[in-house]
Amino acid sequence: MFHFFLLALFFISSSSPSHGAVQDFCVADYKAPEGPAGYSCKTPSKVTVDDFVFNLGTPGNTSNIIKAAVTPAFAAQFPGVNGLGISIARLDIAPGGVIPLHTHPGGSEVLVVIQGSILAGFISSSANVVYLKTLNKGDIMVFPKGLLHFQVNAGGVTAIAYVSFSSPSPGLQILDFALFANDLPSALVEKTTFLDDAQVKKLKAVLGGTG
Amino acid sequence: MFHFFLLALFFISSSSPSHGAVQDFCVADYKAPEGPAGYSCKTPSKVTVDDFVFNLGTPGNTSNIIKAAVTPAFAAQFPGVNGLGISIARLDIAPGGVIPLHTHPGGSEVLVVIQGSILAGFISSSANVVYLKTLNKGDIMVFPKGLLHFQVNAGGVTAIAYVSFSSPSPGLQILDFALFANDLPSALVEKTTFLDDAQVKKLKAVLGGTG
Amino acid sequence: MFHFFLLALFFISSSSPSHGAVQDFCVADYKAPEGPAGYSCKTPSKVTVDDFVFNLGTPGNTSNIIKAAVTPAFAAQFPGVNGLGISIARLDIAPGGVIPLHTHPGGSEVLVVIQGSILAGFISSSANVVYLKTLNKGDIMVFPKGLLHFQVNAGGVTAIAYVSFSSPSPGLQILDFALFANDLPSALVEKTTFLDDAQVKKLKAVLGGTG
Amino acid sequence: MFHFFLLALFFISSSSPSHGAVQDFCVADYKAPEGPAGYSCKTPSKVTVDDFVFNLGTPGNTSNIIKAAVTPAFAAQFPGVNGLGISIARLDIAPGGVIPLHTHPGGSEVLVVIQGSILAGFISSSANVVYLKTLNKGDIMVFPKGLLHFQVNAGGVTAIAYVSFSSPSPGLQILDFALFANDLPSALVEKTTFLDDAQVKKLKAVLGGTG
Amino acid sequence: MFHFFLLALFFISSSSPSHGAVQDFCVADYKAPEGPAGYSCKTPSKVTVDDFVFNLGTPGNTSNIIKAAVTPAFAAQFPGVNGLGISIARLDIAPGGVIPLHTHPGGSEVLVVIQGSILAGFISSSANVVYLKTLNKGDIMVFPKGLLHFQVNAGGVTAIAYVSFSSPSPGLQILDFALFANDLPSALVEKTTFLDDAQVKKLKAVLGGTG
Amino acid sequence: MFHFFLLALFFISSSSPSHGAVQDFCVADYKAPEGPAGYSCKTPSKVTVDDFVFNLGTPGNTSNIIKAAVTPAFAAQFPGVNGLGISIARLDIAPGGVIPLHTHPGGSEVLVVIQGSILAGFISSSANVVYLKTLNKGDIMVFPKGLLHFQVNAGGVTAIAYVSFSSPSPGLQILDFALFANDLPSALVEKTTFLDDAQVKKLKAVLGGTG
Repeated sequence: MFHFFLLALFFISSSSPSHGAVQDFCVADYKAPEGPAGYSCKTPSKVTVDDFVFNLGTPGNTSNIIKAAVTPAFAAQFPGVNGLGISIARLDIAPGGVIPLHTHPGGSEVLVVIQGSILAGFISSSANVVYLKTLNKGDIMVFPKGLLHFQVNAGGVTAIAYVSFSSPSPGLQILDFALFANDLPSALVEKTTFLDDAQVKKLKAVLGGTG
Repeated sequence: MFHFFLLALFFISSSSPSHGAVQDFCVADYKAPEGPAGYSCKTPSKVTVDDFVFNLGTPGNTSNIIKAAVTPAFAAQFPGVNGLGISIARLDIAPGGVIPLHTHPGGSEVLVVIQGSILAGFISSSANVVYLKTLNKGDIMVFPKGLLHFQVNAGGVTAIAYVSFSSPSPGLQILDFALFANDLPSALVEKTTFLDDAQVKKLKAVLGGTG
Repeated sequence: MFHFFLLALFFISSSSPSHGAVQDFCVADYKAPEGPAGYSCKTPSKVTVDDFVFNLGTPGNTSNIIKAAVTPAFAAQFPGVNGLGISIARLDIAPGGVIPLHTHPGGSEVLVVIQGSILAGFISSSANVVYLKTLNKGDIMVFPKGLLHFQVNAGGVTAIAYVSFSSPSPGLQILDFALFANDLPSALVEKTTFLDDAQVKKLKAVLGGTG
Repeated sequence: MFHFFLLALFFISSSSPSHGAVQDFCVADYKAPEGPAGYSCKTPSKVTVDDFVFNLGTPGNTSNIIKAAVTPAFAAQFPGVNGLGISIARLDIAPGGVIPLHTHPGGSEVLVVIQGSILAGFISSSANVVYLKTLNKGDIMVFPKGLLHFQVNAGGVTAIAYVSFSSPSPGLQILDFALFANDLPSALVEKTTFLDDAQVKKLKAVLGGTG
Repeated sequence: MFHFFLLALFFISSSSPSHGAVQDFCVADYKAPEGPAGYSCKTPSKVTVDDFVFNLGTPGNTSNIIKAAVTPAFAAQFPGVNGLGISIARLDIAPGGVIPLHTHPGGSEVLVVIQGSILAGFISSSANVVYLKTLNKGDIMVFPKGLLHFQVNAGGVTAIAYVSFSSPSPGLQILDFALFANDLPSALVEKTTFLDDAQVKKLKAVLGGTG
Repeated sequence: MFHFFLLALFFISSSSPSHGAVQDFCVADYKAPEGPAGYSCKTPSKVTVDDFVFNLGTPGNTSNIIKAAVTPAFAAQFPGVNGLGISIARLDIAPGGVIPLHTHPGGSEVLVVIQGSILAGFISSSANVVYLKTLNKGDIMVFPKGLLHFQVNAGGVTAIAYVSFSSPSPGLQILDFALFANDLPSALVEKTTFLDDAQVKKLKAVLGGTG
């Protein structure tokens, strides 16, 4: 212990006191202010290993109209990824199920299939080219940042996949929800999408939209 | 001239020769390789002021089904913005015209109205909240990165706006083109958007899509 | 509404509660702490469309010695751009007016002329090359980050331009103010600029400097 | 097709020709120059969906002294992730196996257990605190950027995990290889680690080091 | 003063009040929340020149087992560098002394020798190549981000060096401290490093580790 | 060697060949294209330790009108710092000498005094506040990105300092050179700085400017 004492006392000398963390990590403190770079940091001395561990082992409930579920472990759910440039989520897609067309405004995505088969695709913005592939267990696919993409169950069993993102808060904008599950007036949806009035009103009714 | 000679000779001394630019700028050389951060840089000695100047004074042609035009000055058109984190475009929206629902995968947008009135809106991803406002001459509005948004002429004259982006290559993904102007099979469009088959086929016919 | 209920309940499942925003945006809360990345975020539920809209339609007052005005919509004035990598300002330059030599320490600038003519220029740091151009209505010019530049009215009418920046807080350091409008001792100004004592004192008197 | 023609011709007008990609993605061209931001981009017209798909379904060969294998899908193996801020790898750890102490100089890591149990840990730099946890199927853990960490099989069957990184090229520095599998002189290893000469020479013999 | 009044009143016009700093700098306020990008900013009006000045003139105390000292001026000690992407530290290495093998998880390092001679080296992660050089007064060497490196006194006098980092909070993970100065169980250290039990226990005794 | 063979063969398995570097570093290849993020990377197998080492031990020649010299080790001179976010330079300031008012468009600076005394200062952009301090041996000072600053010899002996930057290519724009050492017309200099014609022509004569 003698040598340790010497080390602790003399090795890292400093002409003024040191304050706070050395920015190894910044576990989210959900009660303090949030900024453009993420949540404030929890006091390092109060951080435990459980801040860095999360469970995505429970199947998402697919008893819904899309027969699918997304279970996120983003910074808002998983404090340990705050500020670290990465996050993860679990997809469960029952037979006949689909993760509808959507984007992640804040990051790129890598998907790995754990069980079943998934028909996945994304559409480029430059020439509207479609990149489409059926993925089986062990296949991975990358979806570049901000582009429209989707995943469809392509087999007879529930498909499971993990999707990682290049941001702790990638966001998730589902096209149908953006168009039909809010109060955006039907006339405006029609004007900006060329969809027919009957089509818009039908989907607004399904998804709970008004206007 | 004597003092200048001294300065040139001695002020900035260096123990080895200097190579290339000092990264003040990196004007796009369209013939050299492109990387994740943008185009390669043109040799500084060949750069002229015209690399940094562009003209967006000509009205875009609005004689099309959307009665609108987007004229971009992104890095692919305007070499001077390469690597500088910014770009610009001009919008012309004739009476009855619309810039349909779209996203910019790579950047946020600020719009300023120069002439006429524009009804603009964007949809957040968290709760699908719609932020909607009629903008008049001199009004500006910001559209956060990657979110679905649109602009509609809200007056009796052609509206003109300039839109700036937080990226030299923000991209432009127009929803209708992504869905209906390519070979993405109709069955997949329907599966991932809940749109009806007739609706999908109608718009594919209008926009030139196949499948 | 039944289906919507199912969606709301089951689609996005999560094994722990979610906290705060999904980082679509971070509207400035001017009363909370500011960090290196910008202001803290306003609670999303309190954000309205007016946080994303600003007006730059009013001409700046050019009744001053430079016959010009800069009206900024930076993060400090326009909360919606906080954290989004972009901001904007309006320039009004009366006949004979000038935006004196200045830099923006934090970002590149794109200027678009809306009315009148502007002689604009910037100076590169590597070889002190001057890039100079007279810009007319519809012309745009880019000024790379941190370099000295200026704009001068080049016509008989007030020139109006919008300038966008690759940062929500680009800063604005006007050379004359930095040299002559503070308490930097005249001897130091002279020593570090080679200007004559009489010249320095004359401009300090004009601009309110002391020392 | 008539309307489509109009759109293609008039919608996106441009006062000068457009060059190259719109930066949706930058698939690695391994034959062109590499820069600090990654590999050069493959010509978009030559990109196919297979550039965005990779297979990590084959178990790594664990018949080695560590009874474990790392199979990377970094930008050097998987061209589609180039420039996108993310990559992935597969870990196979046989019973008794270990991924020895290592760092990723370029990014943070998220691990998800697919099969078996893993005892994982990392060490913070500020106070040398150890964060240690046994992870089972479905558990995830985050390892902050650049910190020493390890994974050990904690069950009776081969453990499988997928690890994602906040960089397309995170790097992998295995402590034992850095110390004992090269020509770093034994005297220097001993001087900079306090390890005994016999220990250093023993491990250099095992790992093929010289000096 | 008349003109100054005009300038102050009219030059920078704004249609709404301005709030807080213009992000020239963000001096650390150690009492406010810390976020992923660093400490909160001190109120600009309370910032003085002393926030931007620090003293590293005092020799570190080298009376310890490594005969060396590191004196940091990181954001935690030196508030002025917060958010500015740079920091600095002083190394004192007595004859026979060593800065043991370590990494900086958050940044690259440039070292300049002020006095004496230093044998410095780093190990690359790709092929475990060692880059090794004896540096004399005036020599500089760069250590890429996150890689293992060390410095050893290579002369008969105390060596002094200044080391700068590409981050205000680069972190410092000393290998021996990470392995032997905490409660990481010996069995795990041995399992993940291949070191012998006796070796591990010997160094744990020296450095104060338990388990 | 047997075990090493096993490791080399099996430990890092990969389902496709690996290409190029793992981005530990990107030593500048001055003959390949330069991009916005820096120079292209030298082939890793051709990199040697000398790419990471540079000498700044030779005093700069101060026999010039400013009695001072700047010797840079930026990416253009020192290939090892390319892409690493840091660089360094040496300042020599003879008695009576001065590093005139200047900015670094691309990065913040930390200065450490090695010999003599230096009066250093910078000017903030928000309120034109001057931060001024006399620095002695061992003192350090930080100059935030892009702001005007200067260094003046404050003692009777040549002052020596090392200055580090938060960019491998910070740039250096010296105010007097930008104003008076090029072909920027005198009338424009006067118009944009309020300097008198005689003053401008006097300094243009000294510094070699025309126009």
